[in-house]
Amino acid sequence: MGMLTKWSLLAGVMLTSSPLYAEDLTQWVDPFIGTGGDGHTFPGAVVPFGMVQLSPDTDNPMRGVSPQSEIYKRCAGYHYDDSTIVGFSHTHFSGTGHSDLGDLLIMPMTGTPKTEPGTAADPDSGYRSRFSHDDEEASPGYYRVKLTDYQIDAELTTTARTGMHRYSFPETDQGHVLIDLTHGIYNFANKVIWSDVRVVDNSTLIASRRSNGWAHERPMYFAIKFSRPFDDIELINEDNARYRCMGCLDNKNGKHSTIVNSRIPFTAGKAVKVLARFDNPHQAPLLIKVGVSAVDKSNALENLNSELPHWDFDKVRSDAKAAWQTELERMEAKGDKSQKRQFYTALYHALQAPSLYQDVNGEYLGVDGEIHKADFTHYTLFSLWDTYRALHPLLTLVSPERVPDMINSMLAHYDQSYDRILPIWSFHGHETWTMIGYHAVSVISDAWQKGIRGFDGKRALDAMTATANHPNYDAIPEYLKYGYVPMDVLPESVSITLEYAYDDFAIARMAESMGEADIAKAFDKRAQNWRNVFDPETKFARGRDSKGNWDKDFDVEEAKYMGPFTEGNSFQYSFYVPHDVAGLIDIKGGDAAFIERLDELFTRPLHADKIKEHEDIAGLIGQYAHGNEPSHHIAYLYNHAGAPWMTQARIRQIMDTLSNDTPSGLAGNDDVGQMSAWYLFSAMGFYPVTPGDMTYVIGAPQLPEVTLKLSNGKRFKVIAKGLSKDNFYVAGVSLNGKPLSQSYLHHNDIMAGGELVFEMAATPNKAWGKAIDARPKAMSPYKN
Amino acid sequence: MGMLTKWSLLAGVMLTSSPLYAEDLTQWVDPFIGTGGDGHTFPGAVVPFGMVQLSPDTDNPMRGVSPQSEIYKRCAGYHYDDSTIVGFSHTHFSGTGHSDLGDLLIMPMTGTPKTEPGTAADPDSGYRSRFSHDDEEASPGYYRVKLTDYQIDAELTTTARTGMHRYSFPETDQGHVLIDLTHGIYNFANKVIWSDVRVVDNSTLIASRRSNGWAHERPMYFAIKFSRPFDDIELINEDNARYRCMGCLDNKNGKHSTIVNSRIPFTAGKAVKVLARFDNPHQAPLLIKVGVSAVDKSNALENLNSELPHWDFDKVRSDAKAAWQTELERMEAKGDKSQKRQFYTALYHALQAPSLYQDVNGEYLGVDGEIHKADFTHYTLFSLWDTYRALHPLLTLVSPERVPDMINSMLAHYDQSYDRILPIWSFHGHETWTMIGYHAVSVISDAWQKGIRGFDGKRALDAMTATANHPNYDAIPEYLKYGYVPMDVLPESVSITLEYAYDDFAIARMAESMGEADIAKAFDKRAQNWRNVFDPETKFARGRDSKGNWDKDFDVEEAKYMGPFTEGNSFQYSFYVPHDVAGLIDIKGGDAAFIERLDELFTRPLHADKIKEHEDIAGLIGQYAHGNEPSHHIAYLYNHAGAPWMTQARIRQIMDTLSNDTPSGLAGNDDVGQMSAWYLFSAMGFYPVTPGDMTYVIGAPQLPEVTLKLSNGKRFKVIAKGLSKDNFYVAGVSLNGKPLSQSYLHHNDIMAGGELVFEMAATPNKAWGKAIDARPKAMSPYKN
Repeated sequence: MGMLTKWSLLAGVMLTSSPLYAEDLTQWVDPFIGTGGDGHTFPGAVVPFGMVQLSPDTDNPMRGVSPQSEIYKRCAGYHYDDSTIVGFSHTHFSGTGHSDLGDLLIMPMTGTPKTEPGTAADPDSGYRSRFSHDDEEASPGYYRVKLTDYQIDAELTTTARTGMHRYSFPETDQGHVLIDLTHGIYNFANKVIWSDVRVVDNSTLIASRRSNGWAHERPMYFAIKFSRPFDDIELINEDNARYRCMGCLDNKNGKHSTIVNSRIPFTAGKAVKVLARFDNPHQAPLLIKVGVSAVDKSNALENLNSELPHWDFDKVRSDAKAAWQTELERMEAKGDKSQKRQFYTALYHALQAPSLYQDVNGEYLGVDGEIHKADFTHYTLFSLWDTYRALHPLLTLVSPERVPDMINSMLAHYDQSYDRILPIWSFHGHETWTMIGYHAVSVISDAWQKGIRGFDGKRALDAMTATANHPNYDAIPEYLKYGYVPMDVLPESVSITLEYAYDDFAIARMAESMGEADIAKAFDKRAQNWRNVFDPETKFARGRDSKGNWDKDFDVEEAKYMGPFTEGNSFQYSFYVPHDVAGLIDIKGGDAAFIERLDELFTRPLHADKIKEHEDIAGLIGQYAHGNEPSHHIAYLYNHAGAPWMTQARIRQIMDTLSNDTPSGLAGNDDVGQMSAWYLFSAMGFYPVTPGDMTYVIGAPQLPEVTLKLSNGKRFKVIAKGLSKDNFYVAGVSLNGKPLSQSYLHHNDIMAGGELVFEMAATPNKAWGKAIDARPKAMSPYKN
Repeated sequence: MGMLTKWSLLAGVMLTSSPLYAEDLTQWVDPFIGTGGDGHTFPGAVVPFGMVQLSPDTDNPMRGVSPQSEIYKRCAGYHYDDSTIVGFSHTHFSGTGHSDLGDLLIMPMTGTPKTEPGTAADPDSGYRSRFSHDDEEASPGYYRVKLTDYQIDAELTTTARTGMHRYSFPETDQGHVLIDLTHGIYNFANKVIWSDVRVVDNSTLIASRRSNGWAHERPMYFAIKFSRPFDDIELINEDNARYRCMGCLDNKNGKHSTIVNSRIPFTAGKAVKVLARFDNPHQAPLLIKVGVSAVDKSNALENLNSELPHWDFDKVRSDAKAAWQTELERMEAKGDKSQKRQFYTALYHALQAPSLYQDVNGEYLGVDGEIHKADFTHYTLFSLWDTYRALHPLLTLVSPERVPDMINSMLAHYDQSYDRILPIWSFHGHETWTMIGYHAVSVISDAWQKGIRGFDGKRALDAMTATANHPNYDAIPEYLKYGYVPMDVLPESVSITLEYAYDDFAIARMAESMGEADIAKAFDKRAQNWRNVFDPETKFARGRDSKGNWDKDFDVEEAKYMGPFTEGNSFQYSFYVPHDVAGLIDIKGGDAAFIERLDELFTRPLHADKIKEHEDIAGLIGQYAHGNEPSHHIAYLYNHAGAPWMTQARIRQIMDTLSNDTPSGLAGNDDVGQMSAWYLFSAMGFYPVTPGDMTYVIGAPQLPEVTLKLSNGKRFKVIAKGLSKDNFYVAGVSLNGKPLSQSYLHHNDIMAGGELVFEMAATPNKAWGKAIDARPKAMSPYKN
């Protein structure tokens, strides 16, 4: 990776890499895991936290034409069920429940060139090609497929900001490469606001487009180089002829005498494509390299020239593989092949985002739509409602060098946001306002308390409190006025109240650790607002209007769209008080009643019609929905009621039924690594139920041994003695040789290095972790 | 002008201003001259070479809906014939024959607010208002009108990069201000690619739009501040509801649970308007100030805050007036009121463009679409086919401080152009490829030879020769191959050949002055290519195909659209060999024949059906079309045949019949000052027939006295003794007291300072200037 600059996102890792570790860990990564079902991962090439995700798209269903389910299925462009590929595009989300991107599709072909993708039902109607999983492979930083309709072998690899294609053509007089600037994921008519392409010389193109989608007016610039000159090139503009040649708008009106400079090879419009012809393309593999920038065309070219000055595909591939090896070595896992495949694929998926969003010269597109230059590594893609739960806590362990700049990126977002608010769900210079809460505060508080520095704590706390007091965001003024969000003010009012309350706890903890007692006290008080949406009669979280009346249409199971709950029902959300589980247990009627409710959650069937308005609610065990985030912490809550053994059983149940190493092995959207982070923590034997309280609740390890290689040079090894199909209960735990009686770990226990040894057994140890003192402590101190 | 920075375009002038000159010259400027007929000037507020032109638009006819003539009439947004005003927008061309701009329309109103402009036929159908020229005034840097439908007095003034509005409302409960981002000049459906507006606080908006038009994908950013908080604001998005709230694209699909952050006041789309309400608006005048940038929103705000930090409308107005006074003082003219009104209005129109296109921080949008930062003042709007003739030569006399940076701006264009070519007809970061030739070379050569430095001559010559040898521009390869542009290769082939040949002469002269003899020789040879399109039989310039055959459909009078001539006919273009008039006279058959042809040009009627395909061919005297550039030099050519007295008569004839001080006083488009520059030179008594040969051909002064205040501190005074209605012939000329026998001046004669005294008479002096040695010498040396 010799071309990396000071801006490289890899620099931090290189300092701490361990070149002596021998095993090729990338062999255990199967990028196809999650590409089936609704995992929404992509199989293409990417480097850790890379800006470019170069991957095949198997279809691009149109909004308003195709059913929503067809669109949802292909949030990552590719779906394992599909049998055709439309081409290879350069940007993809990993695991999201909403979609966008798919920038700059390239497709090679033989025979009569086609410029429309055609349909999956009739692949010959367009440029798409059939393919077979039998002649397809993927590994970290590399993807290959045989395009059977053309007998072209297509390979992909990437650097952080560039993608490289290698197309091996069969013997033929002519081959073509189509570049389709109209292609996109989450496509719809008029998605492309404007695009252009210019032929710089006979092997170089510069292109750009600005598109709407989830993000509005999202720009992307491309520098494209071919390894050999094209023999002909056609710029196709399918727009109104008015746009075919700029500067000649009036020719038809007889207005003025501009000569059309048709010799200047450039076109711009809403439907631009390029068709390049290569004679005898089989003589040598055709290479295409693409530099990408969100800033401008010159940066795209600079990114390309800086990161990928050569034409050595195999070197790019091996560099990408080496980068992944370095990352994966942060966790050394033992286990059977299926376990290691799941584990390292989860780690691979966890280390993709927040992703780089910055050019080699330090410039990036800010959320204000302006170009900024940062002396830190700038990241984008904050799916915070998902990732604050386990992904960001995981990164504090396996990638802590990157955490400060992820936070600096969030603080830059705050500064640049016209609304002076931390990111909610942002990507590519845009705040989507998707999902609820202000969970950036959790990520920051968690990192700060764990001793991660490299960002300004005071500035961060100011941004956190300003966000939590924002006068315009969602329903904060009403939340402050009523102590809860009234359901007549805003939908999802109960979920919002509960998540605000947790976020307030996270702010209080950071303030406390900084000696800001007044702020801590005020937010600890707010953190108790969760109580205001718990109906004492039903003991469930329940919608409430601004007059204090409880929701008359209350249904504990119904996950109504724009009802009081967010992608969930009351049953699930009634367990969402991660910062005061003790208080929640009280309200639920004590340990036994709480455990009974937990068991009911995992056993009471959830009828499909109760959740029909939410495709995200998936991976069900009773009411528990492993496929969506509101459930992720719940299996660990038995611990808080003194019954860790029941958590242990649930973890194994979830692992056995909702996770495997096939393409459909994810129970729901990976959600930018959150589902993977759940897997990694849970497989190790503990989980951050309450980010910001410095503890991890102990579950049950699923691998015989996992070693965390910490950034301080220490190692924290987790050993599960006697682990087997039947031995999923924890008989006892010791930390560094001393028995551990509490059912949780402190972050400092991990960072000190050492060994956590589980004795696994086929029968539960119901005494361990039962004592009040042994239970996880997280709660808002205000109550005490 | 205390806020001006080092980037200020006014800095140079302030150094050379003459504060002791007493007469208020701005009183003689009537911005309404040229707003009638097809002058295409605007009456609004602008500072010299300013980036903002804040002016009323009287209609915005739509392409495809309104007749082309209605669009053509309103290239500058305003037409004197109109009786309604739709609002005030911030950017305007002055005098162009094609249109665009009209960015950010603002309109105040009383009564029920309206959001559509309505029609001129039924003004009450929309927000437009009737107005009367009786209650309207304009002066340099200031415009005022009573909007009679609303009884609102609207005033406008500007700084270089900002506009300021002052609206005085009648007594009323509520007033409204509409901001219409859909408005534009040269409007058509989907002209606006995308726009957005954000409410920053209760008196500040930030907006942007990207539009197509003559320039494609042209961005403009606006920072808008009101002098008092609005009492309510409505963001109107007339697009598909899909765009009404970003981030909630899927609500209708029930896709995910994003809460719409309707409290964040922002909208984006293709049809965005803002309606601000002000209660009791009559209590004090409502001021609005707008900062404009082509770079980004933060620059728009920085431009506003830097140039216009206060709310003192009258100070802005007086500063603008002072800036104009400083400029106008470069020429001291005596004459009657009508003459002075025409003269100073011409000077006012000549000093508007090339206009500033750069933010206070030095950044500007380059022709590559990228943001660049310059340590020179960056200009845009190079209407070079028009302005190389007289406007740019004029600027070397009255604004030489700006010339180097105008050339540096052209060289930056060359560097940034993907095509590595000097500007042809460019504005706002876009090359329109409008008109023919590569006349930037004329501007540069003329300036260089006149001793103007401050740009890199070697770099300039490289750019000039590269442009003249460009492999893709128009028909240069064929021009080089055949020695002319064949009519079967490209339309307008004869005009292109003739203008290339002149441009080649200009390159040769610059090369010669730099000691580049080989280059000079090569281009002098090319400069003789004009001969290849002169048919020896007809002695007219005539189309010729690639086999050498002359155009069979030749019609000396026909100005066919996309025929062999550019906005002209063979009669006019057969006089276009400005660099070898002697050679032309030979071909035409000698002096007498040449003079006969000239007289025929001025007397032979040109039937309307011969020019019906060109609206630009206007201001006719016979075949002579004063309203368009190909004719501008022709009246002076009698001198070259030894008959200056006939030039003298023609100049007076043109002045008397084709110029006056009324709104319709221009015979055709002012063409960004070219027509005005013709007037100024001709009124002084000489004209640059051959830019780049260092001479001015003497005509006949039309004012009794004009003094040029030169940048070297010297003065060059032109006195026309005895000038009167009847005394329009030149009886004799003396320079600094010595008789001048030649009928031309050298540039150095002017720069040395002194007095040029004409003795005017009612009868011609046919001997003066008749001798061969007395005639203008310009010719390509290659022939000799």
